[in-house]
This record gives sequence, C-alpha cells and structure tokens, in this order.
Amino acid sequence: MPFLRNVWYVAALDEELGRDMFTRTLLGEAVLMYRKLDGQAVAMADRCAHRFAPLSRGKLIGDNVQCGYHGLQFDCSGKCVVNPHGDGRISAAARVKHFPMVERYGLLWIWMGDEHLADDALIPTYYSHFDSPEWKTVRGSSYQEASYLLIADNLLDLSHDQFLHENFHKKDAFLTTPHDVFQEGTAVVSRREVLCSVASDAFAANLPDPTVLVDQWKIMRWEAPGYFLLDVGVRPSNDPNGAALRKCNAHILTPATETSTTYFFVNARNYQRDDARVDAQIREWQRIGFGEQDKPMIEAIQKCMGEADLFDLNPIFLSVDGAAVRARRQLTKLINAQEAAAAAAPVSAPVAGVIATAP
Amino acid sequence: MPFLRNVWYVAALDEELGRDMFTRTLLGEAVLMYRKLDGQAVAMADRCAHRFAPLSRGKLIGDNVQCGYHGLQFDCSGKCVVNPHGDGRISAAARVKHFPMVERYGLLWIWMGDEHLADDALIPTYYSHFDSPEWKTVRGSSYQEASYLLIADNLLDLSHDQFLHENFHKKDAFLTTPHDVFQEGTAVVSRREVLCSVASDAFAANLPDPTVLVDQWKIMRWEAPGYFLLDVGVRPSNDPNGAALRKCNAHILTPATETSTTYFFVNARNYQRDDARVDAQIREWQRIGFGEQDKPMIEAIQKCMGEADLFDLNPIFLSVDGAAVRARRQLTKLINAQEAAAAAAPVSAPVAGVIATAP
Amino acid sequence: MPFLRNVWYVAALDEELGRDMFTRTLLGEAVLMYRKLDGQAVAMADRCAHRFAPLSRGKLIGDNVQCGYHGLQFDCSGKCVVNPHGDGRISAAARVKHFPMVERYGLLWIWMGDEHLADDALIPTYYSHFDSPEWKTVRGSSYQEASYLLIADNLLDLSHDQFLHENFHKKDAFLTTPHDVFQEGTAVVSRREVLCSVASDAFAANLPDPTVLVDQWKIMRWEAPGYFLLDVGVRPSNDPNGAALRKCNAHILTPATETSTTYFFVNARNYQRDDARVDAQIREWQRIGFGEQDKPMIEAIQKCMGEADLFDLNPIFLSVDGAAVRARRQLTKLINAQEAAAAAAPVSAPVAGVIATAP
Repeated sequence: MPFLRNVWYVAALDEELGRDMFTRTLLGEAVLMYRKLDGQAVAMADRCAHRFAPLSRGKLIGDNVQCGYHGLQFDCSGKCVVNPHGDGRISAAARVKHFPMVERYGLLWIWMGDEHLADDALIPTYYSHFDSPEWKTVRGSSYQEASYLLIADNLLDLSHDQFLHENFHKKDAFLTTPHDVFQEGTAVVSRREVLCSVASDAFAANLPDPTVLVDQWKIMRWEAPGYFLLDVGVRPSNDPNGAALRKCNAHILTPATETSTTYFFVNARNYQRDDARVDAQIREWQRIGFGEQDKPMIEAIQKCMGEADLFDLNPIFLSVDGAAVRARRQLTKLINAQEAAAAAAPVSAPVAGVIATAP
Repeated sequence: MPFLRNVWYVAALDEELGRDMFTRTLLGEAVLMYRKLDGQAVAMADRCAHRFAPLSRGKLIGDNVQCGYHGLQFDCSGKCVVNPHGDGRISAAARVKHFPMVERYGLLWIWMGDEHLADDALIPTYYSHFDSPEWKTVRGSSYQEASYLLIADNLLDLSHDQFLHENFHKKDAFLTTPHDVFQEGTAVVSRREVLCSVASDAFAANLPDPTVLVDQWKIMRWEAPGYFLLDVGVRPSNDPNGAALRKCNAHILTPATETSTTYFFVNARNYQRDDARVDAQIREWQRIGFGEQDKPMIEAIQKCMGEADLFDLNPIFLSVDGAAVRARRQLTKLINAQEAAAAAAPVSAPVAGVIATAP
Repeated sequence: MPFLRNVWYVAALDEELGRDMFTRTLLGEAVLMYRKLDGQAVAMADRCAHRFAPLSRGKLIGDNVQCGYHGLQFDCSGKCVVNPHGDGRISAAARVKHFPMVERYGLLWIWMGDEHLADDALIPTYYSHFDSPEWKTVRGSSYQEASYLLIADNLLDLSHDQFLHENFHKKDAFLTTPHDVFQEGTAVVSRREVLCSVASDAFAANLPDPTVLVDQWKIMRWEAPGYFLLDVGVRPSNDPNGAALRKCNAHILTPATETSTTYFFVNARNYQRDDARVDAQIREWQRIGFGEQDKPMIEAIQKCMGEADLFDLNPIFLSVDGAAVRARRQLTKLINAQEAAAAAAPVSAPVAGVIATAP
C-alpha cells in the first residue's frame, strides 16, 4: 500500500536535532535534517544532485550543506549555491529535494507530499498541551522492524495488556470493560469508562487515598496516518468537579519503509510533575513493556506475514478489533482517494532539479 | 520443485519434544509442536488465526496453547476454545492449521498434506528394529543450508567416502567395488558386496579375530521423499549361518525450505551394544565426517547452484551416480503425479478457519 | 549493463598466486587460480563439472586439480583426466570452463570472453615500465562493494581531492587548474598542467630544493573496461631537459559483480627508489585516502543508487565530469557493439563440456 503523502509526519523529537547533521529514513527516503544557526530545523533528501553521495557525509558551512565528495553547497531550500569547479556556474537543475519542516509541541513535523499543499494548519492541534507547564512530558523514539499498520493494531487494541503485559497490569479496572468504538470525522476513537471502582495500579499510587472509589477512563484516539492520543485518568467518584489525575500521551508512527517504522512517544501527565520516580516508571514501561514485550511480538508478526496485507491473509476478527479495523479502512480510503486523484491529474511538468544536461 | 505432500515426514526425534513448545520450519511452514499432559505429541501451524502472532511466543495451559498476544486458546486440534474478549463467542473460523502427528520408532512423524489421507500405515516399517532391545541406537539431528535433494545425492553415492572422508576410510573393502543399483517398487537400492576379504576398519575392531576373512555388504535403500536405510555388515566367510555384525541406520531428510533441510540420523547396531566407546565413535563420525566434511561441501554446492535445478545445469554423470539419478527421477515422477492430480481436482471448498468475518 | 567480454582483465597481482589454490569472483563467476609446478599461472571455473562442488575445496595433485568430493581430476586446460570410478572412462563433456591467463608486468591477466579471440597482444603495453629497474613499484589490491563504474567516476575526476582528501592535499597546484579532456582512439585522457609554480606537497619533499619553480602535470588516462594510467610529475621550469620526478601509476578495476569490484593499484616512481619512507607514504595514502575516504563514499553512493543506472537517475553535470562521462559513453558503445554482434551471430554449437549424458 502506498503511503499517504499530503499529510504531516513526525520526523524527530526536537531534542534529536542540533547542529550535527542527522538522518532518518522516512517513507522510504533517506532524509537529512539539521538546525540552521538560528535554530530553525530544515530537511532535505540525503543525496547530492550530482553523483548521489549522501550529503550527511559532508559538513555544514553556516546554514549550507557542503557535499563531502565534490564540494557542492546547498542552501536550506535544497538549492545549489556554490559550485567550486570550473567557472562556478550553477544550473537551475542543481537542487536536492527539500521538505517543509515545522517545529511544534516539541516535535519536528515534515511534509513529504506536494510542497504546494504544505499548510501547518494541518498539524494536529491535540498535542498542544505538551507546551503547557501544567503537563510534564517524558519522551522518546525507537525503531521497529514492523509496518506502522501492525503497530497501530497494537495501540488500538489495548486488550492485549492482560496477556502481553500481564506483569504490568495485575489489577486493572479496564481489562474486562467493553470498548466503545466510534468515528469522529476521519478519527477513530476507542473509549472505555469504569465508574465507582478502585483505581488501577498506575494511578492508585498517586492518589492521596488509594482506596477511594474513582471514575476512570481510557480513550485512544487515532487519526491518519499514525497519530494517537491516549487519554487516561481517574477522578474521585464522590467529587465530579474535583481534580483528575490524567495522562494525555502521544504515540506517533512514521513509516521508515513499508515494513519498518520510527515510533515516537510523548507521555504527558498533570500530576507528580516533579517526581523523578514517576518519570523513571514511565521509562521503565517503555523499555520493558513496549521494548521487550510489544516490539518483539509485533516484529515476529511482521516476519510471519512477510509482504502480505493483513486482510489478504484472512484473519479472524474479535470484538476487540473494531477500532483497528476501522482505522485501517479509514486509512485505505484516504490512500485510495490520493491514488485516484494522482491518476486523474494531468501529467505534471518535469520536476526542476532532475533534468540532466550532460556536458 | 514442489514438495511431495501426502506422505509422512519426520518432524523431530522423540527426545526433542517435551512440555516446552518447540518449533521447526517444515516444508516452508513454521510448525509448533509439544506434548500433551498425557505425553502425546501434537503439531499445528505456529501462527495465531487472529493476528498471526507465533503461538510459540505464548504458553501452554494444560493441553491448550494460549496466544501470548490477545490470549486466544487453541486445543490440540487447532480449534479455538477460549476467547477472553467481549461475550467470548468463538467463530467456527477460529482455528489454526493442525497437522496429524504419530510417534513411532522413536521418531515423530508429521503429515502436512491432505488430512483425510493421513494413514499411519503409510509410515515406513523398515525402521521398526529401532524399538528392539537387540539393537542399540545413537541418534541426532542437524540443520543444513542445502536442499534435501543435494543431501540425498550425497547419501546415495558413497563413493565420495574415499575423497571427502579419506581420514575415516583408510582401509575400506568397498572403495573400488561396483554398485549394484536397482529399484524395488518406488524404492531405489544401491548394493555393494565383497566376499572373503578382510573387514573394513569400522568392523574389524569389533570382530573376535580382526584378520578372519568375511563377507561384507553395504546396502543403501532410498524411498521418497527422503527416507534412507543403510544396511552394512560383515559375516565370517567360513560360517554362512554365523552371527553378523551389522548396522541398520536411518538417514532421514525433511525439507525446511527448498534450500534447507533438517537431517535426522539413527545409527542402530546389533553388536557392542553397551560399549560407550562405540557410541562415541559414532557421534565423532557424525560430528566430523558429516558435520565438518559433508555439510560444508553440500552447502557450498547449494550456494554455487543457487535456485537452479541440477539437471538444468548440465552436469556430467559418472557410473557412481546411478542411484542418485534414479531417486531424483522417481521423486520427480511422484511430484508430477501429485501436481497433475491437484490440477485435475474440482476446486475445493473454502478451507474452514480461514474465512474472514469482519466485525 | 553486461560486462565487456573480449578483453583482458586483471585477475590478481602476481604475488597473490602460488601453489595454494586461490579464488576470486570475476565478472560474476567464481574463478579458481593456481600456479603449475613450473610457476605458470592457470585459471578455470571454480566448480566441478560433475556435481558443482567448488574445486577450491579439493587439492592440487601436481598440475591437476582433484575435486574434493568425488575425486575427479582436471588438468590445467579444465579437461578431466582422472575418473577414479567404475571403468574410469571419461566423457568428452567432462571439463570445466578454462580461462586463458597471461602473466605480464607483475599482473595476472585473464580472458573471460571467446577463447578463440584471446590474444596477448591486446594486453595494454603502457604498464611495461613496471618491469624496468628504473621504476620502483608499490602494489596492492582491495575489494569494494561498488560498481567499477562508480570507482571509475572517482578516478576520472580528481577534483574531489580537495574535499574528500583535503588533509592530503593542503597545497596542490592542480586544485583549481582546468582539466583538458580529450580522446585518443578509445582512450579518454584528462590532463592538467601548471607551469612555473611551487611543487605540490607530494613532490616538494623529494626535490633537492623544494622552493624551485617547476612545471607540473597530472594526466589520467582511461581505457575500457577499467585500465587507468596516472602520470604525474614535476620538472624544474628553468631546465626543460632536466630530469623529472615522476609517478606512472596503474589503477585497475575488475568487476566482481555488477555492484562489487576488485581494485588493483601499482604505484610506480622514478625517484627515491630505495627510500622505504616513500613506500610507507604510498601505503598510508592507499590505506587512509583510498580505504577510509574514497571507499566508504563510493560504497555509500552504490547503496544509495541501488541497481539503477547513473544516467537514469538524472544527475546534474559539472565541468569536472567530462572525462567520466566520456568514458562511460565509450564503454557503453563498446558493450552495445558486443551485444549487437552477439545478437547477429549464428546460433553457436553446444559448448563442449556441458552436454549431459545421463547414465
């Protein structure tokens, strides 16, 4: 299945990028990223227009990238601005593919589709709390040898908690609660709520009185191509207007290739903001729960499935699959619409920068 | 070339299987095996019907397998018997592929063809002496990065002994004896006999008088797809009714993929049954002779040939190739008959268990 | 792109070959080489005609190769001369592909095209100074995971010196000198000359007076498929008939596969012939400059380009690309002519040695 193109993807956490050149494979392309002297993040294809040397083997000269092979320099827009050879003339074709990049909510967003359609109003707004001092975030990224679709399946069906993560979820009010699955526009939401019960382990330890009865919720929201918001919290049942302990976490999937993914998480909580032990618990969960339980399982499934599409393998479906199946259908619909539009479009003019003019 | 399907293959030695889940790739499929509480061996596809997680990443609950991802449980027939989600309803499609398995002669036999044709009367009977107290067996298995066809070539032409295994066969009456090659039904037999000669090294040490003249034989019998019986022995020439020192060994090849194989050996002898030094010599031969001489040679040939069929590469043929060539022809004939029958068969009804019913 | 076939390739340095069997992949084929008892180098396919065992797993018996599997012996022409089995009869088909090999200038030249066209007069003559006592040579070979075409691009455009090798070329009169590119028959020449200037580092240290003004030249000559002669030197400007300090180096590329290459260098100088420090400097350059700067860059480009042809990727062209582009065109022309001739040729008779005659 092709990737959805005209959409923002997360390319990196903001702390991953500095004045060193940084590369990551995104949607099948090697992408070079770095910060300009003023701190602005830029992204372009990691290959020189001349002989296809990875630009990341060169160096930064101010805001420009100098190719390490023959010394061509490209500015932040991908345009060649220095040719140290011969008369120094620079053909208009001498440019590398440039990708719009926006820094927002501590994340670096990249646009790998039609550059004319890049509009930062399209960046999801529901991660804006990451910027607020009322929330403490713990963040990270990792590489998975599995399709983003399989990781989405995992995130959209948390019923696996009681099996794959049984050590983490010994006492969890949600284990047997039915999911309420519905769509909001193109988003798919899976919601579980439990009223008047003892708080699950994750929150109980942070309540003034762990035995007080609480209303609890766990709401996973998915939006194409791979944005997730997990809203989970508790509020004393006897005080509906009282303060809630709450996490509003991002899980974000950016395809590296069709069968590999960079996974970003931002865990945001509105309680115990200065407690390093809670930070450590979150990191421990990511390291063990995600890293040693989810990741090897999902990668084993990828290996088992090979290049095949899930639906072509005739899987059986369970009641807990509702959200994952809806999300896959929604994504397929968006990709099919993109492909139909591309097929209907007039043949585009040759792309500037890739016309060969031999000497 | 497709695999012969409606035939029993050896999946494991009986001691390889216990209450831990055990997996092996057989005929291109990942197969899960384990013993039930009553000791009976069972086999099924190592992938859950739901999201294709390897079942071997889960655990046994009594005689059932619980998938480690979402907790579905399958019984020994591959049928889903526990769905811990929602109303717990289980669709008839919720089953994993089950393979008939029979334990006989210390070997675990699997049927990966049409389940209705599985008949344990089809298991070769000529390994039955492994169960007899008159024979002592030494057994093992190993994995080879080569087609079972190339290993069969090796086993059916033991003239390589004097070159590849020259250190083991310094004095061997058979080195220059012509092979008598013939067919018995679908079996191919390669027989060498030497009358009134000094026993070859392997036996001489176990004769009361190593210098006595003996009649010796070495008979390799092949049957499709990869069963071998090597009958080798000596009997004093002056006592035709006397006791023979004899080995009746199994070499059994089970394709893992088209270019890899699990090789099983059972070395059975009717002499020095309690002599641990003879056991050690046999293991030494398997380790050095087979492991360090045959295996790297055969794997190098596989690498050299790539995916090509032997005959398509126009090999030259020697007098010693008779048995190997006949066996390949016999196997090809059986596979062609299988494919022709499959092509002529009416389109089969959809296989139970793989019909998708989306929520 | 197919390889040019009817041409001599360098298979090895003469010191690489002795009485041990030596193998190297050349033009996609595993080639076995060794020296006969009289020292003559021979080459043949490294696979037995019988069951395709690599002959290099066997042993030399005098001038013959004995296959390590079934003991067939082949003489230096690839003809089977000993069949130890049955009546010992040897079919005319029992031969392995033989490749003409000539030792010249300290290099072992192999002919992998039509054997009838092999003519040692076609071996380039411009490496003959390697045999002269007036030149001191330092030689080596290495394996590159890149097409010989990409390495040729590198050698034909030394303008990369100032970027990729900036530590070696701090002061180099040639950095900004235009290339004079022209063809001589099928050869492509790239020449730079600088008159009346201070010698570049490489030579200055070896001049009696490093500050004397000199005329300097750097001439790279390429000939298909991958022969290079780099003639670089200085001569005092005030003494046009004076002695020149000069290097006349060979760089020779022999494809291993379409995307890998064996690279040979012979560095020949006519000065400081007994100075081990100069030898060490040359080896240092090969180890660092070529090994740690050129090689990883070229291999990264290969990885970036995959199987694609350079021109199909629409590279931009610079003034410094003239020689490389001309060489690629020249080579393409020669290969196209070869393919056209092959297509027009009458169907050839079956090749002796590959006709199967089954028992």
